[in-house]
Amino acid sequence: MPTVPTAAPTPTPHPDPTRRYAFFGPVGTFSEAALRTVVPVGTAPADPYPSVDATIAAVRAGRADVGVVPIENSVEGGVSATLDGLAAGDPLLVVGEVVIPVTFVLAARPGTTLADVGVVSTHSHGYAQVRRWLAQHLPGARYVPSLSTASAAAGLAQAAADGTGAGYDAAVCAPVAAERFGLQVLAEDIGDNRGAVTRFVLLARPAGDDGRVVLPAPTGADRTSLVAFLRTDHPGALVEVLEQFVTRGVNLSRIESRPTGDALGRYCFSIDCEGHVAEARVGEALMGLHRVCEQVRFLGSYPRADGRPALPGSGPDEDAFAAAEGWLRRVRAGRAG
Amino acid sequence: MPTVPTAAPTPTPHPDPTRRYAFFGPVGTFSEAALRTVVPVGTAPADPYPSVDATIAAVRAGRADVGVVPIENSVEGGVSATLDGLAAGDPLLVVGEVVIPVTFVLAARPGTTLADVGVVSTHSHGYAQVRRWLAQHLPGARYVPSLSTASAAAGLAQAAADGTGAGYDAAVCAPVAAERFGLQVLAEDIGDNRGAVTRFVLLARPAGDDGRVVLPAPTGADRTSLVAFLRTDHPGALVEVLEQFVTRGVNLSRIESRPTGDALGRYCFSIDCEGHVAEARVGEALMGLHRVCEQVRFLGSYPRADGRPALPGSGPDEDAFAAAEGWLRRVRAGRAG
Amino acid sequence: MPTVPTAAPTPTPHPDPTRRYAFFGPVGTFSEAALRTVVPVGTAPADPYPSVDATIAAVRAGRADVGVVPIENSVEGGVSATLDGLAAGDPLLVVGEVVIPVTFVLAARPGTTLADVGVVSTHSHGYAQVRRWLAQHLPGARYVPSLSTASAAAGLAQAAADGTGAGYDAAVCAPVAAERFGLQVLAEDIGDNRGAVTRFVLLARPAGDDGRVVLPAPTGADRTSLVAFLRTDHPGALVEVLEQFVTRGVNLSRIESRPTGDALGRYCFSIDCEGHVAEARVGEALMGLHRVCEQVRFLGSYPRADGRPALPGSGPDEDAFAAAEGWLRRVRAGRAG
Amino acid sequence: MPTVPTAAPTPTPHPDPTRRYAFFGPVGTFSEAALRTVVPVGTAPADPYPSVDATIAAVRAGRADVGVVPIENSVEGGVSATLDGLAAGDPLLVVGEVVIPVTFVLAARPGTTLADVGVVSTHSHGYAQVRRWLAQHLPGARYVPSLSTASAAAGLAQAAADGTGAGYDAAVCAPVAAERFGLQVLAEDIGDNRGAVTRFVLLARPAGDDGRVVLPAPTGADRTSLVAFLRTDHPGALVEVLEQFVTRGVNLSRIESRPTGDALGRYCFSIDCEGHVAEARVGEALMGLHRVCEQVRFLGSYPRADGRPALPGSGPDEDAFAAAEGWLRRVRAGRAG
Repeated sequence: MPTVPTAAPTPTPHPDPTRRYAFFGPVGTFSEAALRTVVPVGTAPADPYPSVDATIAAVRAGRADVGVVPIENSVEGGVSATLDGLAAGDPLLVVGEVVIPVTFVLAARPGTTLADVGVVSTHSHGYAQVRRWLAQHLPGARYVPSLSTASAAAGLAQAAADGTGAGYDAAVCAPVAAERFGLQVLAEDIGDNRGAVTRFVLLARPAGDDGRVVLPAPTGADRTSLVAFLRTDHPGALVEVLEQFVTRGVNLSRIESRPTGDALGRYCFSIDCEGHVAEARVGEALMGLHRVCEQVRFLGSYPRADGRPALPGSGPDEDAFAAAEGWLRRVRAGRAG
Repeated sequence: MPTVPTAAPTPTPHPDPTRRYAFFGPVGTFSEAALRTVVPVGTAPADPYPSVDATIAAVRAGRADVGVVPIENSVEGGVSATLDGLAAGDPLLVVGEVVIPVTFVLAARPGTTLADVGVVSTHSHGYAQVRRWLAQHLPGARYVPSLSTASAAAGLAQAAADGTGAGYDAAVCAPVAAERFGLQVLAEDIGDNRGAVTRFVLLARPAGDDGRVVLPAPTGADRTSLVAFLRTDHPGALVEVLEQFVTRGVNLSRIESRPTGDALGRYCFSIDCEGHVAEARVGEALMGLHRVCEQVRFLGSYPRADGRPALPGSGPDEDAFAAAEGWLRRVRAGRAG
Repeated sequence: MPTVPTAAPTPTPHPDPTRRYAFFGPVGTFSEAALRTVVPVGTAPADPYPSVDATIAAVRAGRADVGVVPIENSVEGGVSATLDGLAAGDPLLVVGEVVIPVTFVLAARPGTTLADVGVVSTHSHGYAQVRRWLAQHLPGARYVPSLSTASAAAGLAQAAADGTGAGYDAAVCAPVAAERFGLQVLAEDIGDNRGAVTRFVLLARPAGDDGRVVLPAPTGADRTSLVAFLRTDHPGALVEVLEQFVTRGVNLSRIESRPTGDALGRYCFSIDCEGHVAEARVGEALMGLHRVCEQVRFLGSYPRADGRPALPGSGPDEDAFAAAEGWLRRVRAGRAG
Repeated sequence: MPTVPTAAPTPTPHPDPTRRYAFFGPVGTFSEAALRTVVPVGTAPADPYPSVDATIAAVRAGRADVGVVPIENSVEGGVSATLDGLAAGDPLLVVGEVVIPVTFVLAARPGTTLADVGVVSTHSHGYAQVRRWLAQHLPGARYVPSLSTASAAAGLAQAAADGTGAGYDAAVCAPVAAERFGLQVLAEDIGDNRGAVTRFVLLARPAGDDGRVVLPAPTGADRTSLVAFLRTDHPGALVEVLEQFVTRGVNLSRIESRPTGDALGRYCFSIDCEGHVAEARVGEALMGLHRVCEQVRFLGSYPRADGRPALPGSGPDEDAFAAAEGWLRRVRAGRAG
């Protein structure tokens, strides 16, 4: 096992049978689908947890080595439970990401027809993504929220097994969930936004004194995530934070405000930028943030799922950073600059 | 009735018996509590709607003149349904705001004790605000989501009336909901964040050709809301938008990113700033936004609930704007500047 | 009439026989050459003044209607006497500009050869532009400063007429000065920077109550000049000033710091920007400056000598400004924005 | 030894009898006065040179080890010859600064009275600082430029010795020049701006392979000088340069534009900032400049003449820089940040 973390083999997407995985379950969730792109069934132990919070807690407590939770949906935006779970509590690192398309089906117990559906259940994020379809095809249907899209499907199957009612007639869920729970698909691909995707992150505990390698090595196509707590909330404060990136030519790929919970109008900012903390430009931008912010929580540098390198021409490159360092060494020695 | 909108009497908080109100219901929600600070029971017709979407749609369709929905919670952040509902669809104006403290109780059918509670239901936002209390006092309890905090309470009452089970034993709701639905309070003030507040907005259709006065007159302590769609998503674009405010000395009180739904990493920004669109500094900042953004949706200028005027010394005041205008007129006439 | 490549015949102001012109003389200076591109000999009265200060004072006192002085040289930079003369004292307006190439000759009394030249005289700005030539061709020559390049030539002629010595053997001056004063050209085109040009401005008193039209009308290819006195001298103050232009998409074509004379490190900024004060973007930028600066002195909007319009794509155009104004009117009326 | 209020005795460089000094002469100039605050008469060899250019050239060529030239006057601004001489040619380092008050006298051959003075000579910078006095007390006097204030005094003495005329009747010069050249003071303290001061710099060749120590050690109250050549001349480019300082909390004490000599509107910027290149914040700001500029010429870090430390609270301090570096090391090792 190498001792230089930044030269370590990237833990994603090689499944590791010695590691135990946790995911936001039950089986059949999109989180499991994301996990399975990295850890095929049977290659390593993987346990479902009933919520994002529980999944994160399992990693923190050491009951799992890696956890998989959704962080961002192209339609619904950031997943608050994940963003807030990472922003507070014991530190965790994002060690990888998976982006998967989100396709919904309407599933019901075999024998049900569309005309039979008076009540529909799914997770509120899923519901938000099929509202137009439901309004058009099931205008009279009532909505009942569930803990996850898969749990809505599981509830139907469980009720069938128990010979009781589930309180609803159909579930909006992933195709795989309908399959797992033996449901019949009444309608396919019912999402209002074709092309909707969700990004999931793989979480691990940061390195301690045990020599574990956690931080993925730079690949040239990386993303860095962090949370910035502003010192004050005037608009200039946010500009000051953004200038730390602009000045070093580092592009942001996501910025989301999150309330700190103290009062209305008190925010922290959840930020993804291009590049890896091992790169000079990213390192310097992060040091700049550290100096102007009340607190910065580093959440990890990891390979981008799309493998896209940082945009060329968006600022000084690593060579320019190296040249500037050499120049500074010379002038600090009193030589001609 | 005056024809100059900006000189009109502020519609908030005077109830108007000729107006019909809509709120995110059922009765007993925090939205109704917010509405009642403006429109006491019996002073004007007020109808509950089962969701934020339905409430907004009722105002758009003319079934109500004013709608009341939550927009921001000090713990959970922006209310996506409201932010997204205002950002797209037919334009609506915010004509007032109400901020109310959020206090939760655990309520159950009379005769229930805390030891009897195995399943708890509430809205997911409410659940997020009492998680710590539940983990401490009902560590084994399961959570079932509901459409609103009040509907969880209503469900208990309805099941009792029907002589059936509700699928859960207790509801987390507002004190007023427990009272309305004849429930017994098992525990009071169970929110994890004492001092949590939620801000609600009053929505109305914008003025048309009918002479209606919609925009509240400036009071000296106003807030302006808008949605800015950036032309491109590089960090410089957001800085460019923020500079429009900074340059004119206009403070922001809220900025939240929201996905546009097109793709990961495509955002619009929901922004509140200090001041009224009728003021020179705000008007000029908004024109600047209009020029650099792909689109700006003006959501209204209205009195702040806290009555706090714009921070002094945060930039040039209206006198400085007036002086600059007078100076420009002189130099454009070829006189000494 | 000189051939002036970078200066298309400036249309403003048309030579006006009822106007009296002043120029930094004596005859034979580059200032006179600049004047003659606008006011050919014999078309209107034109008087030489012995210094930039005296020329400016003549316009201020009404002894002349228009004065011509150099403001900027491509090699030596801003002409302090002009910049400082415009920044303080009774206001004047720049009503036109002329750019002419600067070509130097070495001139002496007829019969003199290069080998005879032991002492050379010229204005210090002229000297700075021929130093390399002198070091190469007259390495032993001593330098004696003069009040203007033309006065060095005039001194030689006067001494010849008086039958005395001038204190120097040759003058560095414009070709026209050698011709006017009957001198022999020992060497042509001796400037170190081929392509050196000097920009001259035409100054007039601003409009008063007399109905005079002073400010040139916009031509689509204009320049605006001003002096900005910063409120404080921290770097953020200069950034704040520059942001007023950047925010409105107005390009600067010149910025020069000048001491205010109070103390080391106290500066004002002499600025030229693209466009005309009558344009919305320039007007708004100037109002912004007026608000954030201790003082702004408007020095005029006038046609560019090179006829080049503002760079396309450098910011919102006039249409975008007009669209933003229309939009603001609508939203201020409470209509959908 | 003159009393120099704003210039505490500069400790750098200690007069060193093994070093040879050059100054902008002749004897009696303000440059010599500046030199004498560091190198009293008789302590080390010091040679006058007839111009700033010649003084700089003497240091470059090794004919002197340290040169003293004026760089900035509180009334007239930057000294172009010095700024341009440092910006181009073989690199030199500023190793110290001296600030001295500028006091002018009107001096003439003994026996002359004020009424006898028809022609006055001095350097053009000196003339600019006594114009108001001359206009008031010698309204009819003509002005003849000289190479330095001291050379005007020297010319009078020389002409007296030669029994000839100097071409002028009185010189505007430093009190010490009148004394040196045996002139009579007709009027004292005739400068228009009481409190005018001039800042002089001590120049040396940068370190080579010879082990010489050139860069002064940090004292906690230092200044750093440099020249920045912008990549492009749009206003955003200057903002980008200034942001490099603002982002690191480094204050500027002087910024002056200078033409590069290529064309009108092409500038480089001569900049002084607070602090020493050995400090983290200054080093990082300079690296940032190096990356965004076409070229940066480092001109030295040296103790401020006024001994004033960098303004407190103007940005992150050295501790904050050190803390950020430690934090970056930890997160780069994959530990909790």
